[in-house]
Amino acid sequence: MSSLRSRTRRRKRAPVGARPGILTADPQAEDSAASLISFDDDTASAPVPGTLEAIRAARAAGRRVWLDVTGLRDIAFIGAVGAEFGLHQLALEDVVNTGQHAKVESFEGNVYAVLRMFRPDRPFETEQISLFLGADFVLTFQERKGDCFGEVRRRLADPKAQMRRRGADYLAYALIDAVVDGHFPALERAGDLLADLEDEILAGPDPSQMLRLHEMRGRLMVVRRAMWPTRDMVNSLQRGDIPEMREETRVFLRDVHDHVVQIIDMNESYRETAASLLEVYLSMQNARMNEIIKILTVVSTVFIPLSFLAGLWGMNFQGSPWNMPELHWAYGYPMALGVMALVAGAILFFILRKGWLRDASRVPRAHPHGEETAKPH
Amino acid sequence: MSSLRSRTRRRKRAPVGARPGILTADPQAEDSAASLISFDDDTASAPVPGTLEAIRAARAAGRRVWLDVTGLRDIAFIGAVGAEFGLHQLALEDVVNTGQHAKVESFEGNVYAVLRMFRPDRPFETEQISLFLGADFVLTFQERKGDCFGEVRRRLADPKAQMRRRGADYLAYALIDAVVDGHFPALERAGDLLADLEDEILAGPDPSQMLRLHEMRGRLMVVRRAMWPTRDMVNSLQRGDIPEMREETRVFLRDVHDHVVQIIDMNESYRETAASLLEVYLSMQNARMNEIIKILTVVSTVFIPLSFLAGLWGMNFQGSPWNMPELHWAYGYPMALGVMALVAGAILFFILRKGWLRDASRVPRAHPHGEETAKPH
Amino acid sequence: MSSLRSRTRRRKRAPVGARPGILTADPQAEDSAASLISFDDDTASAPVPGTLEAIRAARAAGRRVWLDVTGLRDIAFIGAVGAEFGLHQLALEDVVNTGQHAKVESFEGNVYAVLRMFRPDRPFETEQISLFLGADFVLTFQERKGDCFGEVRRRLADPKAQMRRRGADYLAYALIDAVVDGHFPALERAGDLLADLEDEILAGPDPSQMLRLHEMRGRLMVVRRAMWPTRDMVNSLQRGDIPEMREETRVFLRDVHDHVVQIIDMNESYRETAASLLEVYLSMQNARMNEIIKILTVVSTVFIPLSFLAGLWGMNFQGSPWNMPELHWAYGYPMALGVMALVAGAILFFILRKGWLRDASRVPRAHPHGEETAKPH
Amino acid sequence: MSSLRSRTRRRKRAPVGARPGILTADPQAEDSAASLISFDDDTASAPVPGTLEAIRAARAAGRRVWLDVTGLRDIAFIGAVGAEFGLHQLALEDVVNTGQHAKVESFEGNVYAVLRMFRPDRPFETEQISLFLGADFVLTFQERKGDCFGEVRRRLADPKAQMRRRGADYLAYALIDAVVDGHFPALERAGDLLADLEDEILAGPDPSQMLRLHEMRGRLMVVRRAMWPTRDMVNSLQRGDIPEMREETRVFLRDVHDHVVQIIDMNESYRETAASLLEVYLSMQNARMNEIIKILTVVSTVFIPLSFLAGLWGMNFQGSPWNMPELHWAYGYPMALGVMALVAGAILFFILRKGWLRDASRVPRAHPHGEETAKPH
Amino acid sequence: MSSLRSRTRRRKRAPVGARPGILTADPQAEDSAASLISFDDDTASAPVPGTLEAIRAARAAGRRVWLDVTGLRDIAFIGAVGAEFGLHQLALEDVVNTGQHAKVESFEGNVYAVLRMFRPDRPFETEQISLFLGADFVLTFQERKGDCFGEVRRRLADPKAQMRRRGADYLAYALIDAVVDGHFPALERAGDLLADLEDEILAGPDPSQMLRLHEMRGRLMVVRRAMWPTRDMVNSLQRGDIPEMREETRVFLRDVHDHVVQIIDMNESYRETAASLLEVYLSMQNARMNEIIKILTVVSTVFIPLSFLAGLWGMNFQGSPWNMPELHWAYGYPMALGVMALVAGAILFFILRKGWLRDASRVPRAHPHGEETAKPH
Ligand SMILES: [Mg+2]
Ligand SMILES: [Mg+2]
Ligand SMILES: [Mg+2]
Ligand SMILES: [Mg+2]
Ligand SMILES: [Mg+2]
Ligand SMILES: [Mg+2]
Ligand SMILES: [Mg+2]
Ligand SMILES: [Mg+2]
Ligand SMILES: [Mg+2]
Ligand SMILES: [Mg+2]
Ligand SMILES: [Mg+2]
Ligand SMILES: [Mg+2]
Ligand SMILES: [Mg+2]
Ligand SMILES: [Mg+2]
Ligand SMILES: [Mg+2]
Ligand SMILES: [Mg+2]
Ligand SMILES: [Mg+2]
Ligand SMILES: [Mg+2]
Ligand SMILES: [Mg+2]
Ligand SMILES: [Mg+2]
Ligand SMILES: [Mg+2]
Ligand SMILES: [Mg+2]
Ligand SMILES: [Mg+2]
Ligand SMILES: [Mg+2]
Ligand SMILES: [Mg+2]
Ligand SMILES: [Mg+2]
Ligand SMILES: [Mg+2]
Ligand SMILES: [Mg+2]
Ligand SMILES: [Mg+2]
Ligand SMILES: [Mg+2]
Ligand SMILES: [Mg+2]
Repeated sequence: MSSLRSRTRRRKRAPVGARPGILTADPQAEDSAASLISFDDDTASAPVPGTLEAIRAARAAGRRVWLDVTGLRDIAFIGAVGAEFGLHQLALEDVVNTGQHAKVESFEGNVYAVLRMFRPDRPFETEQISLFLGADFVLTFQERKGDCFGEVRRRLADPKAQMRRRGADYLAYALIDAVVDGHFPALERAGDLLADLEDEILAGPDPSQMLRLHEMRGRLMVVRRAMWPTRDMVNSLQRGDIPEMREETRVFLRDVHDHVVQIIDMNESYRETAASLLEVYLSMQNARMNEIIKILTVVSTVFIPLSFLAGLWGMNFQGSPWNMPELHWAYGYPMALGVMALVAGAILFFILRKGWLRDASRVPRAHPHGEETAKPH
Repeated sequence: MSSLRSRTRRRKRAPVGARPGILTADPQAEDSAASLISFDDDTASAPVPGTLEAIRAARAAGRRVWLDVTGLRDIAFIGAVGAEFGLHQLALEDVVNTGQHAKVESFEGNVYAVLRMFRPDRPFETEQISLFLGADFVLTFQERKGDCFGEVRRRLADPKAQMRRRGADYLAYALIDAVVDGHFPALERAGDLLADLEDEILAGPDPSQMLRLHEMRGRLMVVRRAMWPTRDMVNSLQRGDIPEMREETRVFLRDVHDHVVQIIDMNESYRETAASLLEVYLSMQNARMNEIIKILTVVSTVFIPLSFLAGLWGMNFQGSPWNMPELHWAYGYPMALGVMALVAGAILFFILRKGWLRDASRVPRAHPHGEETAKPH
Repeated sequence: MSSLRSRTRRRKRAPVGARPGILTADPQAEDSAASLISFDDDTASAPVPGTLEAIRAARAAGRRVWLDVTGLRDIAFIGAVGAEFGLHQLALEDVVNTGQHAKVESFEGNVYAVLRMFRPDRPFETEQISLFLGADFVLTFQERKGDCFGEVRRRLADPKAQMRRRGADYLAYALIDAVVDGHFPALERAGDLLADLEDEILAGPDPSQMLRLHEMRGRLMVVRRAMWPTRDMVNSLQRGDIPEMREETRVFLRDVHDHVVQIIDMNESYRETAASLLEVYLSMQNARMNEIIKILTVVSTVFIPLSFLAGLWGMNFQGSPWNMPELHWAYGYPMALGVMALVAGAILFFILRKGWLRDASRVPRAHPHGEETAKPH
Repeated sequence: MSSLRSRTRRRKRAPVGARPGILTADPQAEDSAASLISFDDDTASAPVPGTLEAIRAARAAGRRVWLDVTGLRDIAFIGAVGAEFGLHQLALEDVVNTGQHAKVESFEGNVYAVLRMFRPDRPFETEQISLFLGADFVLTFQERKGDCFGEVRRRLADPKAQMRRRGADYLAYALIDAVVDGHFPALERAGDLLADLEDEILAGPDPSQMLRLHEMRGRLMVVRRAMWPTRDMVNSLQRGDIPEMREETRVFLRDVHDHVVQIIDMNESYRETAASLLEVYLSMQNARMNEIIKILTVVSTVFIPLSFLAGLWGMNFQGSPWNMPELHWAYGYPMALGVMALVAGAILFFILRKGWLRDASRVPRAHPHGEETAKPH
Repeated sequence: MSSLRSRTRRRKRAPVGARPGILTADPQAEDSAASLISFDDDTASAPVPGTLEAIRAARAAGRRVWLDVTGLRDIAFIGAVGAEFGLHQLALEDVVNTGQHAKVESFEGNVYAVLRMFRPDRPFETEQISLFLGADFVLTFQERKGDCFGEVRRRLADPKAQMRRRGADYLAYALIDAVVDGHFPALERAGDLLADLEDEILAGPDPSQMLRLHEMRGRLMVVRRAMWPTRDMVNSLQRGDIPEMREETRVFLRDVHDHVVQIIDMNESYRETAASLLEVYLSMQNARMNEIIKILTVVSTVFIPLSFLAGLWGMNFQGSPWNMPELHWAYGYPMALGVMALVAGAILFFILRKGWLRDASRVPRAHPHGEETAKPH
């Protein structure tokens, strides 16, 4: 399956004109599972299955909760969670209808953020993360099992870490930070692939390079589409008109913002590099064709006139002193060879003076030493 | 007919310098038909023909009305509807003069919105939808029969649905939402066509691919031209300075805005993909030419010198010990064959060392396995 | 004369560093003529020659006047008109120094607007229109005779039309509207030419298409340069800080603004189409070359080895049982023909397997049916 | 020397990290000379050498002065002038360190403007003009002798001109206006060169055209880099927060602003034209190659099979009734000629049906009549 | 190693999701060394090793300090410096995690700026400079030994220089100014390399030029990425809401801003030049191929028909008066030579009329005289 096809997979949608806020399960969605961690300033529970009863018990005990739902098939459960935490119906629809761009929306009692996450184990595959932040809860909805929150879970379980004490908004920040930082390994992988491609293209053009370049451009486009709205999202969270995000946590969002800008910058730089490599590839292809045609031209230009001479003296005119007397001269054959040698020599001299043979040998086939090109010569 | 010609069909216009507000029927316009639904909080009528009498009766009974006019040929009727609902003459002119960009204009007593609708049954064909919203009425004017409002009509007829109770502005929102959501199937179709094209181009270039790519770019351009002003239009409706659009309905417009942004984003991504595919296509074309010329060069480079040798020994010099004595040597012919084999071998060695034969077999003709190119190698 | 040369015609300028406000007649300017219409709420005069005396008489009678000057050669008359109506010297300089971009400038007692007009009878030729609006006068200065104001003159002469009653600013609006609407026929003509070009290019590339495309791009660039500042100009007139343009007339300017935006949008779409067509053209050119070279390669690849064989058996080795005994075999010639047939067959088999002969016949020479490419296949 | 090299000439700079405000003479700078004109409302002196004594005398007499310094080698003199008029050290550094972009900087008691001037006698060569405006003085510093201020000097010397009476800021405006207007002749020259290039390229591609196009693009880039900051500079002067520039002079700056915008617009249009011409050039090159290869293919396709037949019947099989009996048929030779004619005819028919010979003659070599392509056909 | 690979070197990062503010040493980091200069209005110490004791002693004595740390391996020492001067943990993380874009961040008691420095001894290699400014201290952290601060150190040591008296913020300005000015030599080097490339490409295309162009574009991209955020950074410092940067120092930052804009402008101009050179290169490549193919075509077109004639008269038809009687005519051979000469002459005439031989000699191989192309011809 081509990369484009996988990027354009159709999702099941509610019919055009349907009532807003309808939850429609995508038949390809994973089965739902929920994991609950409750914590206060001093203690954090181990993760337990996130049933409605467990949620209600933890909240009744005045503890903060992080409910992490993976798999979006169980519409009924997701709806019940929404009711329990007072989530807006339009937000829930967006949770299920994956394909949202990164955004933040403020509702009564909670704020809803959409993010796009790279999975650490599968580079270049992303999923939608929906995050709700309330005064004492954080909810995350993932499309599939597997995420980059392992380190955050470890810090929450670590009695020495500060995380429990810093409130739900700090936990939300830590999760957003993890999602954003999760782009770096994917981008570094992209950088390596581009550097490999550069080496290969400079060593000699090959159509498979073009295809990989095309695929890489598709991926960098995916990152770009994910990160620009993420920047706006982080800006919105930072601005101070969202009550769930407290002043003391906002300084950390500045750091997240920095990382988003770095990712955008790296990505733009890779996009420019890919565009430049494409042009190098095309010019290398042209250079290759020039070289091939040069060889054809040299061989043809030398031997076609010689062949004509050979054909000329292979004609069968005879029976008259005017008809090909040279065939019977004592030194006719050596003379013919001499004429041919002269013609070939003249042609080769013309070709050498054009510089073609020299050029042909200059076409780079091995990798040029990049660093040297910057030195004076 | 080419796609450009269909997109540039001339419409009949009022003469340059004519009085503003003149209604001129396009001779190619469909015949007009009107359908009226009246409703209050509890009941909704079945659709009836939208005569002026029926309209006046429903409004006199204090009911909200949705008048849906299809076909813009009957200028007199459209003018009478305008008079009945107090529409501005300049707005009516725009209803008839299809070719407006999406916009919203506020008039005394009503607001006028222009949208561009994809028809569900005919992908990539659009028509202009003019929508008027007053305190107790919604008017829609369509160029042709057929629309994507079926689900909205069903909800209005459904006693359990909330729609009747939510006022005319909510109905207007639902219609705008249906028009916007109607872009998704068309865009998904475009995504499928692009993915097919990608597969085909990677399997081997063919001029018909170029033509389909060109046509696809024209269509994506149409979507782009439709959606950017639609975004501004939805923003204007949301801003709160339009009295006909109440606060409680405006939260739903945020959802429409989201969808417009998603459509723009998908569309831009397809545009970039199409541009990248074009470059892949051109480079595949070049690679194909390289391959063809390589074969020509290999065959010529091997056989042209051999043919010269054959011609040489086909010459007729004779009658002297200096003239072609090799023709009479006991092993002259085997020697000649040997010389030819040596020459051919030397040339083939040179060619093999250049790597041409190897390269030629590497030109991809079957579809490369896209996913593998991302793995380490 | 190329299109660029006609677009870059030099105008006579005042010397660098000259006093501002100097009126310099372009030697290529047309002779000046002036036409005066005076009107009040009830009556409008027939057009009379616009002498200073006629102007003063009409104004003294308290009537509104429209003075239309064509041809900018008579500097003295233009200066006298400027003095009569209190026009600023810098504005008058711009009237004569055609080559201004569209703009609006507010002066004491009048407002000065520059527009660029397409003439209805000569598509793609534009001239500068200078328009002054005062409390009771409208002045227009045209470079040449002929304009798109015919319908406006008719409405002013028509006792049933509203125009006389609506004041000088409404007349100014009507003239600006006519100039803007005059772009539509030119753009529709451009659209037809582009559609023709598309049909022709898809039917087979031809260098003349490239030249027409280049010329078309130049024209679309002219429209673009004219319309972007026109949009700003109409916005300025609409904004409400220009006392000569009354509130009640400003709603009509919103309609003009709409049309300017439509023109810009059509024009940008044509520019993108032209750019895409250029790329189609280049790829068709490449496909054509591929086809030609393929034929050369097929013919050469089949016959060059055969010719070698014929040359081989045309050699003259003899006089020894080792020298070309096959020439004397009873079935030597049929065997030779058989070998040649085998070689040719093998080469053709190789070529067929490469798919070249099939490809060659697929190059589209007739027009492909655009609509079909969108259907599922 | 290539145009790029002349544009990238290194200037001597103060060492990295040096104290700001150091004046370092460029060793390639011209020798300094100064010319002083003093004037009041009624009289203007003839230009005298601008010694410090002359300056002090004129200022002591309450006269306005214009000091024009050409050549930036005499650092000491420039420093003394700076001290005399109270110029800021950082501004003086910028005077000497030519390579500033156009800008305006407000200091205590004077305002400092940087401009880039085209010299009337040497198109496409620019120099930096530094202009200081105080309450009663204007200072100009030029890199080299020669400028476009001749007309301004004439107006200042002319008793009938208004210039003396209008103050130092009006003189500054007149100088800025002259520098800006000085771009028009250079741009008109560029337009002529581009039109010539267009004519030549349409008449047949030639590598020298490419080089001139490249050089022209470099020049247009220079204009672009000069004019965008000039626009900001003129805007700053106009804004009204610079006390040295009085209200009554500011209306004239609006005219300068207009001219800057016209220059930018012409320049952008030339840049687009140059880009389009480049594409025309490349496609003409391709068309030329198509034509050449077509001829090669036609000749090869016709004669290579014929040569094979001639070689076939030149073989030496003999001595058996199966060996080439046709050589001995009574009409063998006419039959052979007939077969050859048939083969050649079939190939030519195939070629003619492909339309190649027709196409070849359609490649335009003479200039096409641009105007006709816009007419209906 | 290719230039891209060196630009994409992976740095060691804290794990995804880790606690913010963790200092992680990059294993490739240089060993740390610190140098301390303390100064007051009158005296400046010689540089001493920057131990914590030395720092505390100097600060206790009320002296201003500049601590310059090179090499970021010693995490413990960097953390201790941070504690000593009250630096924020997130800022320290950015010091160590090199790869930040230029920025300024205000913290309690100090302001943190990130810059990217070109080293004077190694063009096109950059390192991250982190600078902290407090009321009485400046801290700089460099990735590696070697910088462009030599002149600043000299001025600080110079009793006649003003620097000691101007406070810590002036020292910070001087360091920022040195970093910015350090871009000029690198850009001048880039300009020289581009001018060399232009000369070489105009003299004849060569694939190594393409590679150097590609590398140059990568470098200009690096400068671009460094300078745009630097501009924002300098603007932030100038704005006046950073208490550590006093009013009297801010006028100098305007000068730095100017230089940043000049660098951006030069860089953009080089980027455009590189893009234009790429197109020149590709067209020269095409011209070269045209020339080569032209020679092939000329030789083939002349000799292939001649060879056919020679082959024709080399056929062995005999034994009948109809079989090749011309072979036995008395003047058969001279006639054959005459026919061949006629054919060759006709073909050459056709070729000459096409202008090919003339064109071939016009392909520029030596450097064209750039200046002449601008003159009238
Ligand atoms: Mg997951
Ligand atoms: Mg982070
Ligand atoms: Mg690399
Ligand atoms: Mg950070
Ligand atoms: Mg491109
Ligand atoms: Mg419809
Ligand atoms: Mg929707
Ligand atoms: Mg939807
Ligand atoms: Mg696919
Ligand atoms: Mg939604
Ligand atoms: Mg090519
Ligand atoms: Mg006219
Ligand atoms: Mg209009
Ligand atoms: Mg109209
Ligand atoms: Mg068409
Ligand atoms: Mg309208
Ligand atoms: Mg392009
Ligand atoms: Mg320099
Ligand atoms: Mg000068
Ligand atoms: Mg001017
Ligand atoms: Mg002027
Ligand atoms: Mg021209
Ligand atoms: Mg003017
Ligand atoms: Mg090409
Ligand atoms: Mg990296
Ligand atoms: Mg360093
Ligand atoms: Mg500096
Ligand atoms: Mg140069
Ligand atoms: Mg400076
Ligand atoms: Mg390009
Ligand atoms: Mg290209």
